[in-house]
Amino acid sequence: MIVGGDAAGMSAASQARRTKGPQELEITAFERGRFSSYSACGIPYWVAGDVSGRDRLIARSPEEHRARGIDLRMRTEVTELDVAGRRVRWRALETGEEGWTGYDKLVLATGARPVRPPLPGIDAPGVHGVQTLGDGQALLDALSQEPGRRAVVVGAGYIGVEMAEALLRRGYAVTVVNSGEQPMATLDPDMGRLVHEAMTAMGITVVGGTEVTEVLTDGEGRARGVRAGGADHPAELVVLGIGVEPETALARAAGLPLGAHGGLLTDLGMRVRGHEDVWAGGDCVEVLDLVSGRERYVPLGTHANKHGQVIGSNAAGGYGTFPGVVGTAVSKVCDLEIARTGLREKDARAVGLRFVTATVESTGRAGYFPGAAPMTVKMLAEYRTGRLLGVQIVGRDGAAKRVDVAAVALTAGMTVEAMTALDLGYAPPFSPVWDPVLVAARKATAAVRAAGA
Amino acid sequence: MIVGGDAAGMSAASQARRTKGPQELEITAFERGRFSSYSACGIPYWVAGDVSGRDRLIARSPEEHRARGIDLRMRTEVTELDVAGRRVRWRALETGEEGWTGYDKLVLATGARPVRPPLPGIDAPGVHGVQTLGDGQALLDALSQEPGRRAVVVGAGYIGVEMAEALLRRGYAVTVVNSGEQPMATLDPDMGRLVHEAMTAMGITVVGGTEVTEVLTDGEGRARGVRAGGADHPAELVVLGIGVEPETALARAAGLPLGAHGGLLTDLGMRVRGHEDVWAGGDCVEVLDLVSGRERYVPLGTHANKHGQVIGSNAAGGYGTFPGVVGTAVSKVCDLEIARTGLREKDARAVGLRFVTATVESTGRAGYFPGAAPMTVKMLAEYRTGRLLGVQIVGRDGAAKRVDVAAVALTAGMTVEAMTALDLGYAPPFSPVWDPVLVAARKATAAVRAAGA
Repeated sequence: MIVGGDAAGMSAASQARRTKGPQELEITAFERGRFSSYSACGIPYWVAGDVSGRDRLIARSPEEHRARGIDLRMRTEVTELDVAGRRVRWRALETGEEGWTGYDKLVLATGARPVRPPLPGIDAPGVHGVQTLGDGQALLDALSQEPGRRAVVVGAGYIGVEMAEALLRRGYAVTVVNSGEQPMATLDPDMGRLVHEAMTAMGITVVGGTEVTEVLTDGEGRARGVRAGGADHPAELVVLGIGVEPETALARAAGLPLGAHGGLLTDLGMRVRGHEDVWAGGDCVEVLDLVSGRERYVPLGTHANKHGQVIGSNAAGGYGTFPGVVGTAVSKVCDLEIARTGLREKDARAVGLRFVTATVESTGRAGYFPGAAPMTVKMLAEYRTGRLLGVQIVGRDGAAKRVDVAAVALTAGMTVEAMTALDLGYAPPFSPVWDPVLVAARKATAAVRAAGA
Repeated sequence: MIVGGDAAGMSAASQARRTKGPQELEITAFERGRFSSYSACGIPYWVAGDVSGRDRLIARSPEEHRARGIDLRMRTEVTELDVAGRRVRWRALETGEEGWTGYDKLVLATGARPVRPPLPGIDAPGVHGVQTLGDGQALLDALSQEPGRRAVVVGAGYIGVEMAEALLRRGYAVTVVNSGEQPMATLDPDMGRLVHEAMTAMGITVVGGTEVTEVLTDGEGRARGVRAGGADHPAELVVLGIGVEPETALARAAGLPLGAHGGLLTDLGMRVRGHEDVWAGGDCVEVLDLVSGRERYVPLGTHANKHGQVIGSNAAGGYGTFPGVVGTAVSKVCDLEIARTGLREKDARAVGLRFVTATVESTGRAGYFPGAAPMTVKMLAEYRTGRLLGVQIVGRDGAAKRVDVAAVALTAGMTVEAMTALDLGYAPPFSPVWDPVLVAARKATAAVRAAGA
């Protein structure tokens, strides 16, 4: 039995079905929403106009799941878990019908809910979240009714900057209001500053270090901007890009173990700790950060899919593990690519690691090749050992996915000196003769040496 | 003393100079050509028109080297090495002046020479190599005199396919004649076939499995095409893209150790084996392949630069090593990207490795994202252990540099199963939720399991 019909839940269902046929294993899944297995990460690009329609974001419809022998019950909310009694209470949202259904094995894939600060006016018409396909549709409807005026995006993390691009490309004058000093708090502030500068150059107004205290409304109660740090930012459209938190109310009520970030805690097989027949994955769990050794909350579709695979295998009697993450994330604002993996300076300090940093400027192609554009790479290495701790990249064409090299190096526990010898692909259209990651590794190696013992 | 003023030699000179100042270390370099430190890899893009001029390909001019305290003697050929006597004999090509100069430490960076088969007509006007800046200039001069007719490219390796693109974009009808059945013999034939099909779709005529037996000439002795496999391929321009071999005649005459591919053999510090004060690097050496454990010949600017760094450090009393390569190479033909790392099937067999393969089709971006184009990833993994042995990728936007993930994984000795858990960057513009490399790793993991014990 699966609670939650999106990436983690339905990947688990599909993998379990691949492992065991309908004669051997009955699979029931409950989803309170109207859609299954969709790409929430694609919503900003749908709003921007890159993706032609909502259905393009749906990887597999309820009908397709049912055709594979999965009893997927849409618009059916699970309202209570009875773990001791091995049953869940559900409610059909359309009909109001309610009931209990028993299970042998339970998969919790309840996902995340958007952070929605309790501000005056937050629920006014004209305030939009962008977490669900319904949110995306509502925003697109608003754009078509009132195109090309002013928009305020609250938050400058991945969703915030992606929505800033989408609205800019829709012809809006965009202001991004962010509590952090710089956008992209997932980067160190010196790298976030590069994003800030680039967004400003694109014509986006970035207001940092400012908390939104109120959504402004007009006489009809419609949102007309936000107040932040005592200043008013008028806009016809307010988009909340503040991020999400684990949707674990059911799990909490059932006494399942939650971590410091509010996510479910699992073992390497994605089994909920202390519960033999309960698994959890996707945006409702915390994951082990392999670099810091601590649990983190990293709600990303790519992890949710991996979790689902592992859960589906294990729950159906197979074997799989999810060892953890190194914290890789990539994004873009227009042509500016943003990537990170591993620890930021403050993450390293928080776990007692002393480190050196190296920041280099390079280009994504040979300097003489057309389109060669600046790229900044920042690298953190442990003091003395020289072990790679993290990499952040901000640049143009080819910047983002370069971080994957560092992600693998982190997973392998490489030193920055070992990285200087990496045999990375070189040809003028794809890299300078020294790849920017290698240039950073050389400078970090020198910094480790200079820091001495 | 440095013999050869290109990437490896002048990197060594520069690194030695950074390590020790002019008061401590005298550096003399001999270069028989007219240019120093240039990017030969950029020549096809110069010919194609991507690079505006010859000087853009020169990383550092002789004057710049001299300004850093390096006595770089251009147009001066070293004609003999007296290793026992620690001196070299040289000849100034402009003046005919000759002499012997002594050294304490010697660096051999004599590079490569183009393979030029002894065919009838091979020296006719209209037959062009593309290894040196002079070659590039001669070819560009020929294009400007006789634009937009027919060209034959002999060879379909990296240089061959890059020149095919360049000439196609210059308006030529291009025929590529190749001794191998498929282009890109650095790939397995099944992956080379994808390159063949894509080149054909671009309008390039690819004639495979055929040896050129003669360069056809007209009454004035000018090249007018080639004969291959009994068929004539008429053309106004013949470009040799057959590759290069180590330029080690001097080293051979001096009794220095050469390997099976004709390149100098060094230790990990790039010291010529058995010779305390002689180093060698760049296109004149063989390198250790870390996957097969055998020496290979991999003439690439990126390795030459690394060699130079290591040599410059060591020769100036510092420390550095070049551990070896995993065989990464990337290229493109128009918008088709081609990448490989590690072992091909025949390489694995040649060293006694039993393996499984997995080939998957995916896309470089989320399937719903604009510009998402097919990408084929082939992965080789060792039988039983599941250790990654090699990856080949053919596809469009974002295909080539994805191979870097596999290059790091090879260096780290990862299994394909460990790779399935890699935390690679995901966002719709940059990757499907399962990166193509992860999809290949999953299929390869299944293949290892299916092959059993």
